Amino acid sequence: MFRHSQLESVKSWLTHPASAALPLHARIQRAIRQMILDGAIAPGRPLPASRALAVSLGVSRDTVEAAYTQLHAEGFIERRVGSGSFVADGSGFPVRPRRQSSGAMVSPPALSRRGTMMAMGGGVREAASPHPFAPGIPETRTFPLALWERLQRQVMKEAGTRALLHGDPQGVEPLRRAIADYVNLERGARASPDQVLVLTCAQQAMMLCATVLLDPGERIYLEDPAYYGARRAFEAAGLDCVPVPVDGQGITVAPVLDDPRPARALCLTPSHQFPTGATLALDRRLALIDWAARQQAWIIEDDYDSEFHYAGRPTACVQGLDPHGRTIYIGTFTKSLFPGLRIGYAVLPPHLVQPMTAARTLLDGHTAPLAQLTLARFMEGGHFGAHVRSMRSLYARRLDVLSGLVRRHLSGRLEAHCPAGGLQMACGLTDATTEQAAVEAARAAGVTLLGLSGLYADRNSPGISGFLLGFAAYTTTEMEEAVKALAGAFGRLRGAGHS
Amino acid sequence: MFRHSQLESVKSWLTHPASAALPLHARIQRAIRQMILDGAIAPGRPLPASRALAVSLGVSRDTVEAAYTQLHAEGFIERRVGSGSFVADGSGFPVRPRRQSSGAMVSPPALSRRGTMMAMGGGVREAASPHPFAPGIPETRTFPLALWERLQRQVMKEAGTRALLHGDPQGVEPLRRAIADYVNLERGARASPDQVLVLTCAQQAMMLCATVLLDPGERIYLEDPAYYGARRAFEAAGLDCVPVPVDGQGITVAPVLDDPRPARALCLTPSHQFPTGATLALDRRLALIDWAARQQAWIIEDDYDSEFHYAGRPTACVQGLDPHGRTIYIGTFTKSLFPGLRIGYAVLPPHLVQPMTAARTLLDGHTAPLAQLTLARFMEGGHFGAHVRSMRSLYARRLDVLSGLVRRHLSGRLEAHCPAGGLQMACGLTDATTEQAAVEAARAAGVTLLGLSGLYADRNSPGISGFLLGFAAYTTTEMEEAVKALAGAFGRLRGAGHS
Repeated sequence: MFRHSQLESVKSWLTHPASAALPLHARIQRAIRQMILDGAIAPGRPLPASRALAVSLGVSRDTVEAAYTQLHAEGFIERRVGSGSFVADGSGFPVRPRRQSSGAMVSPPALSRRGTMMAMGGGVREAASPHPFAPGIPETRTFPLALWERLQRQVMKEAGTRALLHGDPQGVEPLRRAIADYVNLERGARASPDQVLVLTCAQQAMMLCATVLLDPGERIYLEDPAYYGARRAFEAAGLDCVPVPVDGQGITVAPVLDDPRPARALCLTPSHQFPTGATLALDRRLALIDWAARQQAWIIEDDYDSEFHYAGRPTACVQGLDPHGRTIYIGTFTKSLFPGLRIGYAVLPPHLVQPMTAARTLLDGHTAPLAQLTLARFMEGGHFGAHVRSMRSLYARRLDVLSGLVRRHLSGRLEAHCPAGGLQMACGLTDATTEQAAVEAARAAGVTLLGLSGLYADRNSPGISGFLLGFAAYTTTEMEEAVKALAGAFGRLRGAGHS
Repeated sequence: MFRHSQLESVKSWLTHPASAALPLHARIQRAIRQMILDGAIAPGRPLPASRALAVSLGVSRDTVEAAYTQLHAEGFIERRVGSGSFVADGSGFPVRPRRQSSGAMVSPPALSRRGTMMAMGGGVREAASPHPFAPGIPETRTFPLALWERLQRQVMKEAGTRALLHGDPQGVEPLRRAIADYVNLERGARASPDQVLVLTCAQQAMMLCATVLLDPGERIYLEDPAYYGARRAFEAAGLDCVPVPVDGQGITVAPVLDDPRPARALCLTPSHQFPTGATLALDRRLALIDWAARQQAWIIEDDYDSEFHYAGRPTACVQGLDPHGRTIYIGTFTKSLFPGLRIGYAVLPPHLVQPMTAARTLLDGHTAPLAQLTLARFMEGGHFGAHVRSMRSLYARRLDVLSGLVRRHLSGRLEAHCPAGGLQMACGLTDATTEQAAVEAARAAGVTLLGLSGLYADRNSPGISGFLLGFAAYTTTEMEEAVKALAGAFGRLRGAGHS
């Protein structure tokens, strides 16, 4: 029979709240297993007869037998007919010394160098619940969910359990066709469905490009300022990000064209530069296309929210202007539909389709077929176009409201720079308040501000001070309250002799 | 007015089937744009007045005006009041010489070295539609789809549009809790919900471990033979895979324990070794746990189909036996529910949760919240356990059927090695037929065989010849037909003086 302390140990397992989900026999099995691993019952020692232990624990004999059977199957005990059960010999128990040295601190496990770099700053985090003025979040409260559900039911009815299987890693054909039609029509692209690769999001597309097209240590041009997600993806892939300044017409091209040591690729946001909102001028697009052809370099075009252009129609995408097949066009439904959908895409030069698809399977296999089929149905029915149009006018109104509010309540503090499109507006700080102080004051007032300086390669560049204010996901009332809260918070800063 | 050839060019755009999806004004705009890019209308040259062009094309003046307005907005033309419209000067047209040098071959775009390696072999492909004997595919035809839909409707009703937002990148709490309960109860793990990271699949989990825990060039132990997806993920991450032989009790530990230059990590499939099906003995598990603690190395435990164990209950997972927090436990619902779900998970040592979650956001943000919430509901209702139990007995029967068929029709050719669990059975080739010849003969007969030799580090290792036959997704009739087809194909090989 167990000693008193051993019995008490088993009993505590039986009653501990953490064991509540386990059946009785499993609790007994775990208790005995742990004692064996700890060395509390030595190798070769006998276990109590199941009947006796059952009586001591107040359980049925069958329960103890089930525990012993499992311990035996796992190799913890041996059972000898006529002799009983014994702790197995030579299996490596105990796993640790019986007396834990309480003074020894275990140092936190070490990550790799690249792991440390990837984890820095918490990764690419979106605000969990939208609140002013977190940028990059679309309005989802008015999404036609009932319609989406109806289409999903149709799809499940038609496809049945076939939709549960592995999908084509390149993406289901109806969706690739709908995406090709869309980018050709609305974005001036030149794409066949065979050039479309369905992915999870723009982030994944950039990660893929970074690893498949460039080796660690190679250089890639990045707009300065730029989207932090792009920079982090490229750094995680071991690339050397070369910042290229941006002006009112988008990325400046002279630094690229004049570079005696040209980089292998260039990543840009030509529709609405993130974060300045500028649209890249046509002559610069053509110059970069020419550069990429001469250098056999790649252009990674991140067209993440081009649907939302408020002044007329957006300029034709670079991919459609590039006759040399050096441009990878990246799009996503995260902003135009909803973030939880997890569908994005790349339009690839034909030669890249097979290798990028193969590489993607090493990352995460394929995108969920049911979601893809539902989205294809949504687009084929014209609902995507309708939704985008309705969101576009909503966002245009909200941009108007926000810039008016900033002018009315924050003049002398912030200067609004209305973008040609997109879901966020850049504002410059016009007084001596530091970005840091303003961000903290805002946070204390319950308002989120994304500082612009962190989006620059050199945070300490002179003259760059301000914020990116999201507006798409917030009502007039919500924005008005938040701007007034900001005004109050900034006012208190001024009163306190701000730093 | 345009010359005759220019007019014909525009007209062909109007009528070309590829333009069918575009409205008239867009077709005109594209036609003129292309002519400008090609240099067919030189910079500075005038365009026809909109009224005149409209008459020539047989469209309304408004249509041509819309085209001109867009061309102007994009920067292709200038419009001067009283003078008309002119091709813009100095923008970089034409983009290419008017005469294409037809003899010049464009070499296919070059991938990076790691891109070339990632794309090799087509990546990690699953069979698009299940057919004997493609391995690794679960039965989906009997999946309770109506129940899943009902739970999904409930979730959408309760969560509404909130489920459309970005989710917690670590995974929704109800699912992390359901997973923790499951692994603790069924696999003998020791996990709290906070240690669970919801991912897309086991492949992503292995990619994450490879990049976050190891740097390029570092060594990782891999079973030999092993799952090709694991090897490719590690090689894509730049790791040096060190093969460790496997015997009837799983991975052999002496090569690991005796290595004077220990690797940083070890990846193993201890429940059902892929592809041999062996279960790792307890003393070896404890020896490896001890090794990892002493070397501060990592154990990556890929427990991909442990639900399907046919001889009693599976051995407790390594994670539950490891008191030192050196084990990352990887699981997936791809095999136990359905591949199109795209939900897997890692159970992490507490210190790794935040860095791995952050790193994951750089890859693809987060897993779709709706699917996660539906799965959590499915598990909370006991349906996951019920489904697994019913599939387990189905698969056990099918394994039985397959081994019987192999004995009956293929003896002298293949010898079945019944695994303790899993969705595929390894068979050794017992005559002089080469794997290659057998695979081709089978393919000609419409049967898929996965050769074992490709799963070894050294394809040419003596004595390793055979196949992995999947059985879970095929009915008795389907398997019987396929085995008979195989017998016929092999018979023809023998008759033809096989190589």
